[in-house]
Amino acid sequence: MSETEYAIHPRSTLHRHKERAHYDYGTIHKIMNTAPIWHVSFLPSDPSDPFPCMLPMLGQMASFANPDADPEADALDLYIHGHAASRLMRLPTASSQGNGNGDENEGVPVCISAAHIDSLILSLTPFNHSSAYRSAIIHGYATTVTSEDEKLFAMYRITNGLIPQRWENSRSPPTKSELISTGILRVRVVSASAKVNVGGPSDDRKDLKNEEVLDSVWTGVVPVYERLGTPVEAPVNRVKEVPAYLKGWIEERNREGEAYAKKTATMEKKKG
Amino acid sequence: MSETEYAIHPRSTLHRHKERAHYDYGTIHKIMNTAPIWHVSFLPSDPSDPFPCMLPMLGQMASFANPDADPEADALDLYIHGHAASRLMRLPTASSQGNGNGDENEGVPVCISAAHIDSLILSLTPFNHSSAYRSAIIHGYATTVTSEDEKLFAMYRITNGLIPQRWENSRSPPTKSELISTGILRVRVVSASAKVNVGGPSDDRKDLKNEEVLDSVWTGVVPVYERLGTPVEAPVNRVKEVPAYLKGWIEERNREGEAYAKKTATMEKKKG
Repeated sequence: MSETEYAIHPRSTLHRHKERAHYDYGTIHKIMNTAPIWHVSFLPSDPSDPFPCMLPMLGQMASFANPDADPEADALDLYIHGHAASRLMRLPTASSQGNGNGDENEGVPVCISAAHIDSLILSLTPFNHSSAYRSAIIHGYATTVTSEDEKLFAMYRITNGLIPQRWENSRSPPTKSELISTGILRVRVVSASAKVNVGGPSDDRKDLKNEEVLDSVWTGVVPVYERLGTPVEAPVNRVKEVPAYLKGWIEERNREGEAYAKKTATMEKKKG
Repeated sequence: MSETEYAIHPRSTLHRHKERAHYDYGTIHKIMNTAPIWHVSFLPSDPSDPFPCMLPMLGQMASFANPDADPEADALDLYIHGHAASRLMRLPTASSQGNGNGDENEGVPVCISAAHIDSLILSLTPFNHSSAYRSAIIHGYATTVTSEDEKLFAMYRITNGLIPQRWENSRSPPTKSELISTGILRVRVVSASAKVNVGGPSDDRKDLKNEEVLDSVWTGVVPVYERLGTPVEAPVNRVKEVPAYLKGWIEERNREGEAYAKKTATMEKKKG
């Protein structure tokens, strides 16, 4: 573990395709903070229920204690946003009442995952098909944020993480009642890892010598990227031009997303 | 529960925004089978580890017992694909050796989630920002598929679910050794639910009467969709034209994805 890596624990250690593993802050933070959605899993609050729970949520990694943290050099917490009355937001309170899953002092143990698919890799045979992707998995303890300042900080970061400069360009700050009905969980990272795959098809020697297969099977990469479309104004909208901060961000995101997905096709795979 | 719905259990019942809930086969199967990635969560195999586990995986819903099942009218199982030696694939075996999380007869309890983001909904105030999305969460028991026929069935469905007609248009069927190193889990559904949101911004009456806010804040919807780019051939590729099945599918997927995301902006929200 270097000074710019999260702790490595057996639960977060990659055993297969170790060459795809990353534990550094920069890679993990970037995957999490550009993912449109996080999947949050937690243990059932009813101890007789054998199934883990999962919810898709919005969030951002940031540090209230160190707001100017450098995402490449400093550890961050996770902030998850939801309605104050939702199941996930009520979890730390429910847990401290004794369901046995959490430790009052630590918080509720959660696992959070985010993944981007960057390509479909079409090899000569279905078995060797794969994809370029970037995924991160984080384990940590979730607690409810109660300080108003920290709540505002998290709401600001989540809003602007999703749509840069939106906070400043909409009616903010939130009212008292908006603040009360917003739930924010802070997750302290215990262990984390990322997995990144790039490159083109890898095929078996036998298939690469099979003339009939080579002559008939198209092989290569189909880039996959998320695209933001032309904004559609709401019936009540009075601002006739799409503002520059929004237009510029949509164009930049689209350009970068497409360029990276295309680039993965010719990127060199690390050796296993 | 109707005859074309999965069982509703408290763990899968939506309490907030009930109008967004769906329990029918058609909605759930479509969300799962068009998602580029599933998130699979399961309990830790080490009972002293407090954290749930999660892995991003590929899969498809289908029924080996009823291969011609109508996704709108019939229940399906989930098939998850991985390397036979991976942690998830070895889970049912490890579990039956007594980690206490699973029941040998039932399988390993898992929770599987898939989500599509269809838009960003920009309201007048950060608090009312939301998004159009389709998500599904399924709880069920996972067992390892050992029958060669069922394994082949699952591999065929997963390959063609990801890229239609790819199985027939690449070197198939798999060799014996490919079959052995492919792990397939079958998950029998116990409970399932989907959540779908569409529409434009909803704002508070007070903000909608604030002339300064109305005059300065752009409000509307930014469509979000996954795009498949121009295929990039591999250095060994000899099939000079991108085949029609691939080209046609890319065009259709892109057209449909963009059209649906745009459409959500003007779709009527169901009343809560």
